Amino acid sequence: MQNALPVTRAENFADWYQAVVSEADLAEESGVRGCMIIRPWGYGIWQRMQELFDRRFRDTGHENCYFPLFIPLSFIAKEAEHVEGFAKEMAVVTHHRLKTIDGVLQPDPEARLEEPLIVRPTSETLIGAAFQRWIRSYRDLPLLLNQWANVVRWEMRPRLFLRTAEFLWQEGHTAHATADEALEETLRMLEVYRSVTEDGLAMPVVTGEKPAHERFPGAESTFSIEAMMQDGKALQAGTAHYLGTHFSQAQNIRFQTERGDLAYAHTTSWGVSTRLVGGVVMTHGDDDGLRLPPIIAPRQIVLVPILRDRPEDPSIIEYCEGIVAELRQGSGFGEPLRVLADVKPGRPVDKRWNWIKRGVPIVCEIGARDVASGSVSFLRRDRGRRDGKLGFETLPRPEFIGKAAGILAEVQAGLAAQARERMQANIRADLATFAEVEAYFKDSAEAESFCGWAEVPWCRPEGAQLRVVEEQLKRLKVSVRVAPLAQPAIAGRRCLFTGAPAQEVVLIGRAY
Amino acid sequence: MQNALPVTRAENFADWYQAVVSEADLAEESGVRGCMIIRPWGYGIWQRMQELFDRRFRDTGHENCYFPLFIPLSFIAKEAEHVEGFAKEMAVVTHHRLKTIDGVLQPDPEARLEEPLIVRPTSETLIGAAFQRWIRSYRDLPLLLNQWANVVRWEMRPRLFLRTAEFLWQEGHTAHATADEALEETLRMLEVYRSVTEDGLAMPVVTGEKPAHERFPGAESTFSIEAMMQDGKALQAGTAHYLGTHFSQAQNIRFQTERGDLAYAHTTSWGVSTRLVGGVVMTHGDDDGLRLPPIIAPRQIVLVPILRDRPEDPSIIEYCEGIVAELRQGSGFGEPLRVLADVKPGRPVDKRWNWIKRGVPIVCEIGARDVASGSVSFLRRDRGRRDGKLGFETLPRPEFIGKAAGILAEVQAGLAAQARERMQANIRADLATFAEVEAYFKDSAEAESFCGWAEVPWCRPEGAQLRVVEEQLKRLKVSVRVAPLAQPAIAGRRCLFTGAPAQEVVLIGRAY
Repeated sequence: MQNALPVTRAENFADWYQAVVSEADLAEESGVRGCMIIRPWGYGIWQRMQELFDRRFRDTGHENCYFPLFIPLSFIAKEAEHVEGFAKEMAVVTHHRLKTIDGVLQPDPEARLEEPLIVRPTSETLIGAAFQRWIRSYRDLPLLLNQWANVVRWEMRPRLFLRTAEFLWQEGHTAHATADEALEETLRMLEVYRSVTEDGLAMPVVTGEKPAHERFPGAESTFSIEAMMQDGKALQAGTAHYLGTHFSQAQNIRFQTERGDLAYAHTTSWGVSTRLVGGVVMTHGDDDGLRLPPIIAPRQIVLVPILRDRPEDPSIIEYCEGIVAELRQGSGFGEPLRVLADVKPGRPVDKRWNWIKRGVPIVCEIGARDVASGSVSFLRRDRGRRDGKLGFETLPRPEFIGKAAGILAEVQAGLAAQARERMQANIRADLATFAEVEAYFKDSAEAESFCGWAEVPWCRPEGAQLRVVEEQLKRLKVSVRVAPLAQPAIAGRRCLFTGAPAQEVVLIGRAY
Repeated sequence: MQNALPVTRAENFADWYQAVVSEADLAEESGVRGCMIIRPWGYGIWQRMQELFDRRFRDTGHENCYFPLFIPLSFIAKEAEHVEGFAKEMAVVTHHRLKTIDGVLQPDPEARLEEPLIVRPTSETLIGAAFQRWIRSYRDLPLLLNQWANVVRWEMRPRLFLRTAEFLWQEGHTAHATADEALEETLRMLEVYRSVTEDGLAMPVVTGEKPAHERFPGAESTFSIEAMMQDGKALQAGTAHYLGTHFSQAQNIRFQTERGDLAYAHTTSWGVSTRLVGGVVMTHGDDDGLRLPPIIAPRQIVLVPILRDRPEDPSIIEYCEGIVAELRQGSGFGEPLRVLADVKPGRPVDKRWNWIKRGVPIVCEIGARDVASGSVSFLRRDRGRRDGKLGFETLPRPEFIGKAAGILAEVQAGLAAQARERMQANIRADLATFAEVEAYFKDSAEAESFCGWAEVPWCRPEGAQLRVVEEQLKRLKVSVRVAPLAQPAIAGRRCLFTGAPAQEVVLIGRAY
């Protein structure tokens, strides 16, 4: 039996990714360079993710707000002075009117803006300016804000979800009276990211701190969650920065302390984006398309009636809708089950493959035989094929209805376990020399199988020594992802690159 | 006792509106022309509204999606050809990079876009192009989409929430096989708007159809919900358009019918925006600030501990937090109650006024006396002052907790009833001549009290006759708002403007 997709992961992982995104109706090119159309199925997944994160942000005391799409050039110029390595690829608005001149619609030369406006690449600078106005006293702290918004960063090589000029994200920005509180907040949000990603998206991650040279410009420390895709590459799936007083000094965010003196606030920022949808595809997809963890699936169970014979239609449809009605009484993961009977016109086999490619956790096929015997035939999308065949199972109708929520919980756990096993199996902690590391990453470039990450001890090199290490890494097309928060015993071990006493272990690997 | 706001509605309604928006921490100017910062309290209200609408959109079969922020100029030019009265005030992106030249950060001349991009004023044109690609057969219909997004329309005279260059909204776009289905959809969404606005926002509206000259450009028919603000002006609070095949012909949205021939789809579009937040302010606010219907209040009950005496603090705070914990067990309007004990440092009297100005439906003050007697003192924000004083009430603690959800339901109903009574009292259906209508609107411009709307019979004038009527209306600074869907008997009545036999009654009035 052929796969549902025209290309397999093993054949060409990048093409396979595009095929899933397209065949699962997640997103498509818009005709606007670097900007995607997020289709209802893809947006439904994103909206589920948003709800999971938003609830956690609220439970940890954060409030949502909204800042302008545009930033005056002068604000950006001020920020650029303070930030080394400031990125300049941004969309610039220069006119506020169109006019037809000589029959051609164009920017009206008389409607040129006095000051160009930048389409926000982040709202950091506007939010900082607001903090400066809003924070007067220690009573105003902590200030815990979050924004859900679209942002734009001009991308030369866009890829749907992973790297797009416009993307959707949330950016948290907080201000605190002390360094301790700000660092605690940073780690709290990193933990929120970890738990939503692992428990909701079934995507295992390593939480860790970025090495100094991979920090967000201006940050005291940058933490991230790193997920391993099926091609072994790392996806930085969320970041949280402790910014010290760097930004509050640049933007004069000061407060009166309880003792009456003035102090700079300690700030943090943290974000996740629609790139997570791409992460879910590359974590869970197989050669038949997407596989969705039920918690983020817009539909968890879909019933496809097999209507071969006109006269049988009403009874089969009625049977399906009865099952849907009963299932909707039930709940899974603390919410009503999301169930659909796909009774639209169309061939049953097309419908089946449509829902399989979209990754619906449980796809049921209901034919005349099922109606006659009072049963339900269903496919669990977490289970692979058996001998190349789809593994349909059959249960008596009441038993299926009674077990549905439990099966969904199994699918959720199953996808998480498969991904965790794969990640753990592909972190090599036994490479003792740089030559071994080199061989590991080099071989994989030529071999058919993908390689994962290497866990290596290192000495946190700086300056010229760091330059040398960076060159070595660059040659292998890998980077230091993070120093995991959970560190093994390091005493007596030496840096793989320099031979100096090791400070910690880091994960290195290729990345998106 | 002084009012909490520096200006009353009667003194200067426009200044009062600004004062509420500012003092209730809803929004503020951003320093970016025409763009506002929506502060957490304002955004919380918007998010509640979003949830109410989104649930109804989903229940009526619509799916959310997301289209790009940018529209290529050529798309816009194509649309401009088809749309008479096409607005051209739009933000135009012409460059994709900044560069420091002679020490000044500026748009990089070498990064000029080949084709300028327009920041979407709506996504109509991109969604139409997608419909053209996605719709092949009658099986693909109806296609029922919705998008939540920010849009930009350059505004010369911006006002927070009511008219801003950037605003947040939803735009629904649907395609159908027949005119009947499309018109049915249009009216269904109008009804969704009416019920969410009246039942959720407690804002009574008149649903009706716009006269031909007030239709959305290119629409076959435009419907709206019109709300009456406290100054008697109309706020167009939501619109729904039946577009016929006008847009599908322009964008070639065709489908194969069940019989095998090709036909143009019938389309609709409909939208509401953050302007609704301004509507809530002008519907429910009083001279002490905002008053929020509990269904959309980010916090429904706030407890302010009166901490005059340090040693008493712990017992009062403990008492408050016990009440909060008990209240959170309860539910109102089908959801857990949203309750807060405001234990931040600060003077109790400042806190009280802060929450009153923000419009929290129930504000409790808990002092040592309440703790001693086991009672709760509270203020219902739907009730006005009595003899100029805030009307605090007291109930035994268990009784307050038991009744809290019921009191919130009363507040919700009370605000709705006050607003409905005011609207009904200010629609004059007894003005028999144009001279009387003229006197009504003219007097009110000079008088201290506001006037509302006039309900008048008219003949749906066209052409030259319409021009004359429009001139008359313009002189009075009023416009035809809608022909209400609920029409009185019209037989034998004559058009107030032309004397011709009346076709229907319309509402005329000033508008935002």
